[in-house]
Amino acid sequence: MAGSTYGTIFRISTWGESHGKGIGVVIDGCPAGLSLCEEDIQQFLNRRKPGQSIFSTPRKEDDKISILSGIFEGKTTGTPISMWVENTSQRSHDYTQISSAYRPGHADYTFHEKYGFRDYRGGGRSSGRETIGRVAAGAVAILILKQMGIYFTTFTRSIGPITIDENNFDASAILTTPTCMPDLDASKAAENYLKECMTNHDSAGGVIECQVEGLPVGLGDPVFEKLDANLAKALVSIGAVKAFEIGEGTRASLLKGSENNDAFTITEDGISKKTNHSGGTLGGISDGAPLIMRAHIKPTPSIFTSQETVTNSGEEITINIKGRHDPVIVPRAVVVVEAMAALTILDALLLNMTAKLDSILNFYKK
Amino acid sequence: MAGSTYGTIFRISTWGESHGKGIGVVIDGCPAGLSLCEEDIQQFLNRRKPGQSIFSTPRKEDDKISILSGIFEGKTTGTPISMWVENTSQRSHDYTQISSAYRPGHADYTFHEKYGFRDYRGGGRSSGRETIGRVAAGAVAILILKQMGIYFTTFTRSIGPITIDENNFDASAILTTPTCMPDLDASKAAENYLKECMTNHDSAGGVIECQVEGLPVGLGDPVFEKLDANLAKALVSIGAVKAFEIGEGTRASLLKGSENNDAFTITEDGISKKTNHSGGTLGGISDGAPLIMRAHIKPTPSIFTSQETVTNSGEEITINIKGRHDPVIVPRAVVVVEAMAALTILDALLLNMTAKLDSILNFYKK
Amino acid sequence: MAGSTYGTIFRISTWGESHGKGIGVVIDGCPAGLSLCEEDIQQFLNRRKPGQSIFSTPRKEDDKISILSGIFEGKTTGTPISMWVENTSQRSHDYTQISSAYRPGHADYTFHEKYGFRDYRGGGRSSGRETIGRVAAGAVAILILKQMGIYFTTFTRSIGPITIDENNFDASAILTTPTCMPDLDASKAAENYLKECMTNHDSAGGVIECQVEGLPVGLGDPVFEKLDANLAKALVSIGAVKAFEIGEGTRASLLKGSENNDAFTITEDGISKKTNHSGGTLGGISDGAPLIMRAHIKPTPSIFTSQETVTNSGEEITINIKGRHDPVIVPRAVVVVEAMAALTILDALLLNMTAKLDSILNFYKK
Amino acid sequence: MAGSTYGTIFRISTWGESHGKGIGVVIDGCPAGLSLCEEDIQQFLNRRKPGQSIFSTPRKEDDKISILSGIFEGKTTGTPISMWVENTSQRSHDYTQISSAYRPGHADYTFHEKYGFRDYRGGGRSSGRETIGRVAAGAVAILILKQMGIYFTTFTRSIGPITIDENNFDASAILTTPTCMPDLDASKAAENYLKECMTNHDSAGGVIECQVEGLPVGLGDPVFEKLDANLAKALVSIGAVKAFEIGEGTRASLLKGSENNDAFTITEDGISKKTNHSGGTLGGISDGAPLIMRAHIKPTPSIFTSQETVTNSGEEITINIKGRHDPVIVPRAVVVVEAMAALTILDALLLNMTAKLDSILNFYKK
Repeated sequence: MAGSTYGTIFRISTWGESHGKGIGVVIDGCPAGLSLCEEDIQQFLNRRKPGQSIFSTPRKEDDKISILSGIFEGKTTGTPISMWVENTSQRSHDYTQISSAYRPGHADYTFHEKYGFRDYRGGGRSSGRETIGRVAAGAVAILILKQMGIYFTTFTRSIGPITIDENNFDASAILTTPTCMPDLDASKAAENYLKECMTNHDSAGGVIECQVEGLPVGLGDPVFEKLDANLAKALVSIGAVKAFEIGEGTRASLLKGSENNDAFTITEDGISKKTNHSGGTLGGISDGAPLIMRAHIKPTPSIFTSQETVTNSGEEITINIKGRHDPVIVPRAVVVVEAMAALTILDALLLNMTAKLDSILNFYKK
Repeated sequence: MAGSTYGTIFRISTWGESHGKGIGVVIDGCPAGLSLCEEDIQQFLNRRKPGQSIFSTPRKEDDKISILSGIFEGKTTGTPISMWVENTSQRSHDYTQISSAYRPGHADYTFHEKYGFRDYRGGGRSSGRETIGRVAAGAVAILILKQMGIYFTTFTRSIGPITIDENNFDASAILTTPTCMPDLDASKAAENYLKECMTNHDSAGGVIECQVEGLPVGLGDPVFEKLDANLAKALVSIGAVKAFEIGEGTRASLLKGSENNDAFTITEDGISKKTNHSGGTLGGISDGAPLIMRAHIKPTPSIFTSQETVTNSGEEITINIKGRHDPVIVPRAVVVVEAMAALTILDALLLNMTAKLDSILNFYKK
Repeated sequence: MAGSTYGTIFRISTWGESHGKGIGVVIDGCPAGLSLCEEDIQQFLNRRKPGQSIFSTPRKEDDKISILSGIFEGKTTGTPISMWVENTSQRSHDYTQISSAYRPGHADYTFHEKYGFRDYRGGGRSSGRETIGRVAAGAVAILILKQMGIYFTTFTRSIGPITIDENNFDASAILTTPTCMPDLDASKAAENYLKECMTNHDSAGGVIECQVEGLPVGLGDPVFEKLDANLAKALVSIGAVKAFEIGEGTRASLLKGSENNDAFTITEDGISKKTNHSGGTLGGISDGAPLIMRAHIKPTPSIFTSQETVTNSGEEITINIKGRHDPVIVPRAVVVVEAMAALTILDALLLNMTAKLDSILNFYKK
Repeated sequence: MAGSTYGTIFRISTWGESHGKGIGVVIDGCPAGLSLCEEDIQQFLNRRKPGQSIFSTPRKEDDKISILSGIFEGKTTGTPISMWVENTSQRSHDYTQISSAYRPGHADYTFHEKYGFRDYRGGGRSSGRETIGRVAAGAVAILILKQMGIYFTTFTRSIGPITIDENNFDASAILTTPTCMPDLDASKAAENYLKECMTNHDSAGGVIECQVEGLPVGLGDPVFEKLDANLAKALVSIGAVKAFEIGEGTRASLLKGSENNDAFTITEDGISKKTNHSGGTLGGISDGAPLIMRAHIKPTPSIFTSQETVTNSGEEITINIKGRHDPVIVPRAVVVVEAMAALTILDALLLNMTAKLDSILNFYKK
């Protein structure tokens, strides 16, 4: 089944393995007329590039994007945009152990059972490198949304037990701290926590929050294609995400109706809500308030302590994972969350253009 | 856009409004040869029927299902199964206020903005009655999965701050308590909490958990069509769901890798995991352990205290909602969660049949 | 697999069998704000209703449409429109023979093999009555297109060897002749030909042509979603259609480039073509000239002479078909061709709204 | 809209322009375990490569395929297969005229209107080179089908007025004659016809026939997803195809029911048909007889005589096309037709696995 395709109008297909020739994506359905060059994409890929701090794998990859089609005279033509990043730093490992053993917390066992065998080099298709295609395509979506006044603020809300203090919120810190936390103090504390994890050959998880401002009212469709339902799929489809929240999220179940409802009011910009417990959607449709969603990420499964596992020949063994692994993937996953949210929102925005007959008649009026 | 359609192979389209002629669903893609009659469906609809306890709306609806097509001599024929429930208890309300005012926490404002106007009678398409189509179709999916040894246990984990005690777990209580809690003590406490809410003209939320046993290893596809990603969409597409968790869920972000990884071992049934922190998926593919997922549900937005809001002509008003409304929708939503999970799992199961060339060759071998 | 669903944005799901409770359709994705009532649909269904001439089955069916959802205060709401026609004239036949024997030219054998058994009463799902759902949904599409100045002229071009003379073209005859031919002389000749077929207990085929005027330039997408490719699927999906042509069609293969190319010119309406060999598309995209397409229809397979066939238990037999059958289905299929063309064009028109970034930015500009 | 994506389970996305960096395709949904290397694909691409006879453009392109992902240890892994061909022979033309003028019979005008501008170099995305991605993906489908005993015979049936004589049918000639005709005499006559066209600076069309043997009964789904409907879309989606036929095709409309029906009989292989007027489908589902379909192709629009046209600034001009163009595209399109048929059949075959509950239960039985 076609599991690597995402989107209805703005549709992407990603491909590539950790240790194959490269990682790429084809965008089919990008509107014509967008100014686009490789640098526009590269700035987003750089946010997920390895080797930028002591908390990310020292694997040296430039992750340099090439655009192969879909651009003419600096603009998108409406036809498919094919992009890829060549893999350049595949170390010639000794894969003897990993080729037969199933690493706990990884997709080794399930891939092997599903497909009969697997590309075991560096996780193959289930490697985090798979997200390069998502980020490259997401960058295009973000650029389009920016032209419509839609902006993203995506950051690390917590690492392990260390959470940011909203009173210290400093958006500029997102791109400068190694944790992508918008709070310098929390970031320092998280760095110490991570160092301790590394000392113990262990790993950590965390929470990423994505806020989106400037959405028109009306995105998302009733019933199954609710905007928040599609955002849930988008974020949980990122490897390692174990929970999704919108607005009050899990906390909503503890509130009373009188606490959770957002009262409407009239401002100079028209109708708005006095609070935003809903996180920007009502009935699955954007309500004009900022979208607020969170992805909860599990600790990196690759840890450097001995673990019990089995081989594909049915033998129980102890495995000791080697190689280059991030003690936490949260900071590098921030831009992946942003990319997936942007792809989902852009698709909803394009689909919403056909909601009203009047708008359609007006669109085609000569 | 076609928001009321769900699934790739086993595909459903639901229709109908709270105060229209009825609510229905068409299943397109049900395999041929399943024994099916109206009673098979009715038993599931009865679990979400109103008026079964003091905590659900006294609206009297039989919600009696009729099958209109797709069955011949008691069996599904492979062609579309059309089913519907006639609406019989639409009171002729005075809709003067609600027709122009936007109820806080409801989809009134967003529907109106998206479509230019809305069917304001009882929530129209965004009413909870919309889920009748989901449950009827889900019942068919559950019956098919049962034949493969796949079983569901779905229940209320908490209402407001009252949570079940795992040590008191009594599955038989799910269908007998008014809360659908599998813990008689917790249920009593929750009932008291709800009565207090009602006294205060307020409402409550809660958490529903769904466990699925008997899944083969290999369901779900890598990257975007991960089983847990699709379950996230399925559950968040239910109105009022604000968060989705699988396995450890939000708690995973607090654990260390050494705590969260599930060790593999060999049992007499073959490879299995010693623990199930992952909740039954690895890399988005079912791992043979029980699927464990949770939906967090917000308090019913219809409360009987005065609320501030606006009208569609831009006037600020105070609204006092009347009518028949559940102080908590959690117990009635339990079977909806089960239905959505079943539809998602069955579709993944059908799609998975094409994963291996060997299996395909074997399937078509004469 | 979900074979009864059609369309991407304006998506329909049809259901029902010849001798079941009824035949229906759900439209998911109809824009909000269209004035719509049952009479609007009924006029199209009447064009395919049986019993209107001696050349159509005397089965008495009113084919009266009921709308069950999606309309509020006389207008579409943007939510699913469910419609159905109750079956009222299922004669209680003796199905002993047909239940085990495979009728030549029918889908009996293939349905039985695919699904393991079949609803053999009157063809079940493969009956021509299945097209009621298509026509009801197509009627909605035609009404929307009409508001944009897009008009259909669909007619019988030939029955057996009798073809209309373009010089005699009289559009008003389409709805008045029993053949739906826009040429009174040709119609008379065709009627005589059909009477002869009936005398010989035989049946005839024919050709339906559909012309569409008023399309904007730009509908259809490059490569796989070409407008003509989707029209080909739409028309060949109608049972009994064995060939599809656009523009010069099969004749194009005999022409030279200098004969087949359409020169461009400037008129007061802007760019247009001096001829229309292409039939209204270039590169799969509408070119502003009228769309011209044809569907070639085989003779009705139900004939009243003895035929050799086999039973599902592997016995060779002679079959003598009884019952009520049209000696030619072409006249009743004219409105079905029109409906399928309209559904395809409307979907292309909605999808085309997202082709250009400028149009999108303009659409969402406040 | 995503026009460059095709297929439901075995889904492909193609990309690339005539004068861009290259042309490629991603296959998402290929079953795991197929032995596959670049040579397997190359042999199919060689059949559409330019420069193989005096009747095809002398543009020198190796069209050498590279596989970038999805293969491990010589086998498909179930994950996306990305392949591409680098463009190496883009002459640096003078595009002054063509950049503003619309060539008759080409997609220049419609692309320009749809997207606001176009890549005018060599046709851009609407160039025949686009079909490289189809053929590369189709090759994989053909290899899989071959393992199931499903074989293709695809050939030129006619060029202009010259048609093969079935009595002279010699399949070995398909790959040796410059016309791909399986009849040496007809091929000679066609070659002379083409030389005459070239002398007159004109071009020719023709008919391609594709026969498929070995299909199981049951492929295709009722109503909209009929096998022949999808084949119609597949073939008409190839640029320049103006008509599609299955079985008797256009001739069926002239036959009587008694002539067109295929009688069933019992042979040692079980149920079969005495004739094959239907062309291998009944009710849109494969009936076990060979599939027989035809694509009618228009003459190459690029001719070397003066033609009237207009520019995008609204000026009427006379255009004289230069460059390298085939006087007939039929021989090079033969493998494209085969590829599109194979992609469609394979997808139907994978989808058909879920038709019967019994087969599903059996598939998952431990």
